Amino acid sequence: MKPIADYSENQLTALLSQLKTQYKEAQAQKLKLNMARGKPAATQLNLSNGLLEKMENYTLADGTDARNYGILEGIPECRELFGRLLDVPPGQIIIGGNSSLNMMFDVISFLCLFGTGGSKPWLYHKYCNTPVKFLCPVPGYDRHFTICEELGIEMIPIPLGEDGPDMALVKKLVLEDKSVKGIWCVPLHSNPQGVCYSEEVVEQLASMETASKDFRIFWDNAYGIHHISEEVPLKNIIKECEKHGNPNRIYYFFSTSKISFPGAGVALVASSTENTTELKKHMSAQTIGHDKLNQLRHVQFFKTPENILHHMEKLAGDLKPKFDMVADKLEKDLAGSGLASWSNPKGGYFVSLDTLPGCARRTIELAENAGVTLTKAGAAYPYGKDPKDSNIRIAPTYPAIDELKKAMDIFIICVKIAGIEKILENKTK
Amino acid sequence: MKPIADYSENQLTALLSQLKTQYKEAQAQKLKLNMARGKPAATQLNLSNGLLEKMENYTLADGTDARNYGILEGIPECRELFGRLLDVPPGQIIIGGNSSLNMMFDVISFLCLFGTGGSKPWLYHKYCNTPVKFLCPVPGYDRHFTICEELGIEMIPIPLGEDGPDMALVKKLVLEDKSVKGIWCVPLHSNPQGVCYSEEVVEQLASMETASKDFRIFWDNAYGIHHISEEVPLKNIIKECEKHGNPNRIYYFFSTSKISFPGAGVALVASSTENTTELKKHMSAQTIGHDKLNQLRHVQFFKTPENILHHMEKLAGDLKPKFDMVADKLEKDLAGSGLASWSNPKGGYFVSLDTLPGCARRTIELAENAGVTLTKAGAAYPYGKDPKDSNIRIAPTYPAIDELKKAMDIFIICVKIAGIEKILENKTK
Repeated sequence: MKPIADYSENQLTALLSQLKTQYKEAQAQKLKLNMARGKPAATQLNLSNGLLEKMENYTLADGTDARNYGILEGIPECRELFGRLLDVPPGQIIIGGNSSLNMMFDVISFLCLFGTGGSKPWLYHKYCNTPVKFLCPVPGYDRHFTICEELGIEMIPIPLGEDGPDMALVKKLVLEDKSVKGIWCVPLHSNPQGVCYSEEVVEQLASMETASKDFRIFWDNAYGIHHISEEVPLKNIIKECEKHGNPNRIYYFFSTSKISFPGAGVALVASSTENTTELKKHMSAQTIGHDKLNQLRHVQFFKTPENILHHMEKLAGDLKPKFDMVADKLEKDLAGSGLASWSNPKGGYFVSLDTLPGCARRTIELAENAGVTLTKAGAAYPYGKDPKDSNIRIAPTYPAIDELKKAMDIFIICVKIAGIEKILENKTK
Repeated sequence: MKPIADYSENQLTALLSQLKTQYKEAQAQKLKLNMARGKPAATQLNLSNGLLEKMENYTLADGTDARNYGILEGIPECRELFGRLLDVPPGQIIIGGNSSLNMMFDVISFLCLFGTGGSKPWLYHKYCNTPVKFLCPVPGYDRHFTICEELGIEMIPIPLGEDGPDMALVKKLVLEDKSVKGIWCVPLHSNPQGVCYSEEVVEQLASMETASKDFRIFWDNAYGIHHISEEVPLKNIIKECEKHGNPNRIYYFFSTSKISFPGAGVALVASSTENTTELKKHMSAQTIGHDKLNQLRHVQFFKTPENILHHMEKLAGDLKPKFDMVADKLEKDLAGSGLASWSNPKGGYFVSLDTLPGCARRTIELAENAGVTLTKAGAAYPYGKDPKDSNIRIAPTYPAIDELKKAMDIFIICVKIAGIEKILENKTK
């Protein structure tokens, strides 16, 4: 498509009419396609079906019967496996249930209820009309923002650049305002843009001075080994925080939701010894222990960190054609048009697309009415408010590739319609 | 043993010396026996090993892939199965992870963080120096009390009689004090005494007038189908609460921890539609959904409520000889002695024994030093404080029967030593 700026008003009207004909044809197909959520496809899940085999052995190396009660922090085998994978001492790892999101919510709930290291409970500040604030790199993961909203934590959007959050702004805010007690980070292949944090950004996060003593980084390394086109390194933030004398600053989350099964994986939180001891104290009031059989199942299936990485290569093989196809279509149909820009992620689960300002909501609505469901407009921003109304998250992983093709064709028509409508509307103003 | 009152001081001294010889012989055996926790034995767990078979089918009746994300409230099949078992509408059931304790903690945390039905968050009252109070029938389950202690909820002990808590006192306190917002109930085969709540008690709990609008019953029906010697009926408290216009008063907890596997079962909370809707709202910020494969595994293994009940009969068959043996030994060695009284539970996991006042701690210490671990003294009371220092919880389920026999023999020696020591001490005062 030639640059939209080169079209005359008449040409734009003609093009819009032509696109609307294509749109009606698409509608007539009565499709039901979904690019809304970052769900793995069945083809990916099938690669983990070894987890469903008969479990012959349920006795741990130390003789514990994994069927019975106990082991709050997770079985040693499992902590060892993920400790080696993530280069974190197993003693600093707590294995939870099937959801790292649940662990994030619980950790922040604990902070709200109990505080940390003797500090006031975070909820206390709310009752004193100085609610806790979190820095939220945007666009970001909607469920992080939902946790904050639910718990009454105020969110401050921070622009997310090519190598991480705008650190000048981050450093200024954490130094100025002691109510700022947290930052959400998806440091590799971020949701939705695929941003990977540089060494410098990790170092600054670990070392920066903060007004609040109990400032915490919520490090959701959801895509830590989810490389597709290129393996991207990530500096070890736990070590960095230790090195800079801030060992308690970090809560590191990880899960196998997009490695084995989203519905039945294992999740973990890693942190300093002081923090994990504190977490375990609260957890010991909450549970006797999480599902040890599922932890053991994962250990028996994967055995070594190397096998997990090899498994990820197979998953990437399934994902790459989908991401390539999305990139190709966007390039072919929208490059140079001036109607949109988009990310070319090296891994993760999403492509992020920015329409012209004021066009995201309309694009998503058009797609919905032609049978293509996308993530809600604004979802990647705190309180669901995209100030420019331009960001759209594309989740290409779940549909089969031929369905994804159809969905992308319709989606691109919608991007164009919404964009041209907006240009014409602006001209008539 | 003849009544302790019939012994002269000299006879008591002689008896004590004889018991101490037996005690030293026991110590010389260097045993390591444990009657501390209500853990099922491996023989019981083996009856659920069908859960470890290969999972051939992971697709739900509605076509959902149980391996993938979703279904916050648990799979329909599982809610249906337990709904029929417990006579609760499946729509009022939320299936959680592997631990009902975790669901209890989370529900109370939600109440502390968010309140309910528009009421103030329970933590708010703490900051206003009017902390929330819970009624705690005693002796009771230590982990309930730990939740309250962790969350800063004040506990008021309530005597637990033969058919439930002292309802005159309960009704007085809930009417007088609007800070009283909860009561812990283990309504069948209570931990540790095996008390079963009568119809009248259930009716009164459901219908009584309370000063606090958000007063809640935490109904931990942990042993709801765990009959051993006799099946005991329990009035349906959810229906009773509805009938009396207090549908939101009840949170009903249940799990398969002592049906299938303690480490890998499924748990649930049931309540009114209004309460479950509210819980799901908070849960939706916490997780995308719990482990659906494990839910499906349980549905595929048990299939029907009738099968679950039949399974419980098999488990009871394993437990009965142990409970009978404990009862026989206590009867044979302590009945009529005046040194102890104890419960004869019809189900559940425990036997509760009361020593002479001031003898529980000493008895448990003596047992520990002879290699028999018992639950910590005072554990069955709020803040770990047994005002009479007389209650001891015996957990006979985990050890093999020959080990249990040895442990009971030693335990009884310890009860006698501690009792006679105390009597002699009192005489010399």
